[in-house]
Amino acid sequence: MKTEFHGIFPAIITPMTPEGKLNEVAFRKVIEFNIQAGVHGFWVAGGTGESVLLDDEENNRIAEIVADQSNGRIKNIMHVGAPTTARAAKMAEHAAKAGVESICCVPPFFYGRDDAEIVEHYRIVAAAADLPLFVYNLPGATGVEITPALMRKIQDRVPQLAGLKHSAVTFGNVRAFAKMGLFCLIGNSRLMLPALTIGATGCVDGPPNMAPELWVEIWNAYQAGDLERAAAAQDRACDAADRVLGCGGGFHALLKATLSERLGIDCGYPRPPGSPLTVEQQTALRKCVAELGLTNVTVS
Amino acid sequence: MKTEFHGIFPAIITPMTPEGKLNEVAFRKVIEFNIQAGVHGFWVAGGTGESVLLDDEENNRIAEIVADQSNGRIKNIMHVGAPTTARAAKMAEHAAKAGVESICCVPPFFYGRDDAEIVEHYRIVAAAADLPLFVYNLPGATGVEITPALMRKIQDRVPQLAGLKHSAVTFGNVRAFAKMGLFCLIGNSRLMLPALTIGATGCVDGPPNMAPELWVEIWNAYQAGDLERAAAAQDRACDAADRVLGCGGGFHALLKATLSERLGIDCGYPRPPGSPLTVEQQTALRKCVAELGLTNVTVS
Amino acid sequence: MKTEFHGIFPAIITPMTPEGKLNEVAFRKVIEFNIQAGVHGFWVAGGTGESVLLDDEENNRIAEIVADQSNGRIKNIMHVGAPTTARAAKMAEHAAKAGVESICCVPPFFYGRDDAEIVEHYRIVAAAADLPLFVYNLPGATGVEITPALMRKIQDRVPQLAGLKHSAVTFGNVRAFAKMGLFCLIGNSRLMLPALTIGATGCVDGPPNMAPELWVEIWNAYQAGDLERAAAAQDRACDAADRVLGCGGGFHALLKATLSERLGIDCGYPRPPGSPLTVEQQTALRKCVAELGLTNVTVS
Amino acid sequence: MKTEFHGIFPAIITPMTPEGKLNEVAFRKVIEFNIQAGVHGFWVAGGTGESVLLDDEENNRIAEIVADQSNGRIKNIMHVGAPTTARAAKMAEHAAKAGVESICCVPPFFYGRDDAEIVEHYRIVAAAADLPLFVYNLPGATGVEITPALMRKIQDRVPQLAGLKHSAVTFGNVRAFAKMGLFCLIGNSRLMLPALTIGATGCVDGPPNMAPELWVEIWNAYQAGDLERAAAAQDRACDAADRVLGCGGGFHALLKATLSERLGIDCGYPRPPGSPLTVEQQTALRKCVAELGLTNVTVS
Repeated sequence: MKTEFHGIFPAIITPMTPEGKLNEVAFRKVIEFNIQAGVHGFWVAGGTGESVLLDDEENNRIAEIVADQSNGRIKNIMHVGAPTTARAAKMAEHAAKAGVESICCVPPFFYGRDDAEIVEHYRIVAAAADLPLFVYNLPGATGVEITPALMRKIQDRVPQLAGLKHSAVTFGNVRAFAKMGLFCLIGNSRLMLPALTIGATGCVDGPPNMAPELWVEIWNAYQAGDLERAAAAQDRACDAADRVLGCGGGFHALLKATLSERLGIDCGYPRPPGSPLTVEQQTALRKCVAELGLTNVTVS
Repeated sequence: MKTEFHGIFPAIITPMTPEGKLNEVAFRKVIEFNIQAGVHGFWVAGGTGESVLLDDEENNRIAEIVADQSNGRIKNIMHVGAPTTARAAKMAEHAAKAGVESICCVPPFFYGRDDAEIVEHYRIVAAAADLPLFVYNLPGATGVEITPALMRKIQDRVPQLAGLKHSAVTFGNVRAFAKMGLFCLIGNSRLMLPALTIGATGCVDGPPNMAPELWVEIWNAYQAGDLERAAAAQDRACDAADRVLGCGGGFHALLKATLSERLGIDCGYPRPPGSPLTVEQQTALRKCVAELGLTNVTVS
Repeated sequence: MKTEFHGIFPAIITPMTPEGKLNEVAFRKVIEFNIQAGVHGFWVAGGTGESVLLDDEENNRIAEIVADQSNGRIKNIMHVGAPTTARAAKMAEHAAKAGVESICCVPPFFYGRDDAEIVEHYRIVAAAADLPLFVYNLPGATGVEITPALMRKIQDRVPQLAGLKHSAVTFGNVRAFAKMGLFCLIGNSRLMLPALTIGATGCVDGPPNMAPELWVEIWNAYQAGDLERAAAAQDRACDAADRVLGCGGGFHALLKATLSERLGIDCGYPRPPGSPLTVEQQTALRKCVAELGLTNVTVS
Repeated sequence: MKTEFHGIFPAIITPMTPEGKLNEVAFRKVIEFNIQAGVHGFWVAGGTGESVLLDDEENNRIAEIVADQSNGRIKNIMHVGAPTTARAAKMAEHAAKAGVESICCVPPFFYGRDDAEIVEHYRIVAAAADLPLFVYNLPGATGVEITPALMRKIQDRVPQLAGLKHSAVTFGNVRAFAKMGLFCLIGNSRLMLPALTIGATGCVDGPPNMAPELWVEIWNAYQAGDLERAAAAQDRACDAADRVLGCGGGFHALLKATLSERLGIDCGYPRPPGSPLTVEQQTALRKCVAELGLTNVTVS
């Protein structure tokens, strides 16, 4: 498990056809756009990818596409979380066969679980893939926070544990996770630069998927030790995220629409109960994208 | 939608075979035990029934069994909640065909949804079954609380709305829901008597499934206007619930083990990530059941 | 510490003069109005009485007035909470000298305190008065919830502990406190009847201060074992509380204005930062009081 | 109100005599130690200074001492928060006369207040001092979070508003406050460097009071654009804070004991209900301070 995970890992959307099925052509374009913009990997079929709204077969197909399209150029971290351990383990096994570099998994959700149950869930899922494992720390959706203390219990029992996406209000825990030798990918792209200064090794979030160039710039400036440039880039990235997500409408709808706009393709709508943008929201978004200078891109 | 929903509606467990599949024989015994003890209906495949851990096919089969076994003697409220609207609607449609009297549904979970999305989810699911609909107000698991204000929006758009299971800390909202003409089934069986005094029409919870006689007694005493007897019955029921659930181990494991013990059958274990009782917990539970006088029952 | 605490204990307002000083004449009228309406005691200078906004000298004077005016006809539970143990103990000592029947005290607030510090605070304050002590369980204001487990630690070390006002969302804890032999006064007057059915011995809240007759009726009906009449009375009381507090404006302002209206006196305004009613709110309240049939009362 | 607030503003303790009174001699030593270590100002009589546990007279005397001792070398931000607007305004007026450079104030606490009441509280308090005003955003203690939206309402009505101490889990709001032109002092000293990268202008917290050299080093490295050195300094500061506060015992007790140890003086104990360190905790702290290399300092 020596692979390293540093840099920008956009949480990639799951483009859909007008019939609401996985749109493979559009998906490959989104992948390519991001790779060409310099990202270091993807967080696939996670929260931004409509995760728990996907069938297991769709999840499996997505793993195959990202592995095939990226073809070793970047690192895919494939989400395999599910309400039951058996379903998650089965998707984990498939993800490994499909050729992704790593898996990630939310803790069991809906029902409260004790620490032993959470650890055992991760142990079985990780063993099924035998790839580097990322914990998906997303208490706002799952109702359970992975604290450093709980993470230590996971680390004791799960040899594949490599890191986590940290999407919790406990921002300061980034340092504790880094001190444990974990790759801590900050789950709030507005806080990427601050997180890097206390030990995060990168960022996973939805906004970098629609405008990867903005976050790649933060990363490059930071790597060059140019704090002023990094701070200016972070500020621009925050502004873009705030304005796009402030157009009204849901998170998934806005990211999909922005990518449709920029790439000249149709990434479709969120799967219901997610709702599409209204005409007014669509108009506001188009104007916003133009004002932000998020240019149209032709992906070969 | 004139059907009335009054009384004790145990949230029924989903018995499993040693292989972790639905145990139909044991399930029918649990149903029969409860009906003979005088319950007025069931809350089927809900939180206590391991809801989101079940495959859709299992959910469908469960609907068929409860309708067949109860055969009109009591009212089944079948849970059809799912992460996507399409899956929930499909299960709702099947539930109606299977012959249950009513459906219930958690609001969309994992992702936060706005009011319009929640209302639309309920509208589509309810229309698919065209049976009385119960909202499942369970913020501890779903992350969203159905307030009286949000319920009014649902009521405005969903003609099938009949009531709710109220499992939130906002106990006082029982009165508000009752004033809206809804059948408000209190989701905390320890608070059944208090809830009846402010407008609840019954109770849905797991503990009444293992000891239905205790809650039927509260109901009967209350109907007879005998407050002292009702309070004594509620106290005994609380004590039973506290002691059984205080044996250590998880909620599902303890309810299943208690029913296995009382009915002389094997209701199996929780589906992982739920964990079975340890030997010590099993021993403590057996002792507890005996001390509480929860007698062995032969179900014909 | 054999005194018993059963019944309706309005949380009494602290009437103020136009200059914002304690209005003793109005205060005595409010006390008298409530006693004549049949209340069993008062919760004095608590949350409703603008507690932490009062100077210690005002608190002391209030203790003297309630003891003098009630003159043994009812039981006064005097609040002596303060940020420091020393100030609370000093007010406790004075309250005992002033002749109140009991004291109550919020746990230390603002700073989080560990259990040992909370217990020690209560031990010292209770010893200073050597009167029956009520814990004021008000986590919404103090940030600390007195759980049954913490209450047991207090009970182990504070011989004067008699009971509590329970104003927390953990409604079901009423039963646990009652089982500990405590007088549990429910702090939400809308839930008085439900609370009585699981062991509460009475009610403390602001709304009963403005319309004591409504809650005295619940109490009397419940004592007579007349559940239907008790439920109807509770419903009417809830309606009155909802409507008065729904007129717009703050809690203290509305209670003071209602009492001013009913008694034909001037109870004044809340102490800033509390704000007075606007003219529109005042008009709405006057209309509401009339519609509810909360009649004008002449207190001799 | 053109004064600028940049750098390290330790939240200073309030040393006490063995009798529990303000220890002026020790207080002056603590001030001097910090100034000589290079701090840019103090947050005086705030949370770390036992704020709400102080009498108003003590608060006033503290203002006089800090103004006199620092004598214009650094900037004092004097806390004047109180439960009533009148008390806070009176202390604000005195603070200005005493010669501090600025005041700060918690929002009204204990009772929930609406936005208009909070704004009006700040307006009156700020006008009483007519000095730059800092809002003290401390929801863990006050129960109210000052969001950017609420801050904008304060900014609209309070011309003296200069900035805030941000001590809330909403770390990302630092950027929003900075964009409003406010001096945003981060209230979590473990997150100082991250906060600077998104617009904070400095830090206010208790730990810098006991080891100001560690945070001054972060500041200086950051000002020099040396990110690596700044990150190393932040890491060392975090380690010191974690280890000292991990010795067991309360926050105030540990800070006071550390300063007593380093300066060879007696800063006393926390005011009850705060409790002193146990002998074991005192021993652990002494060992910890030595291991951290927090040297003894002679303040002239």
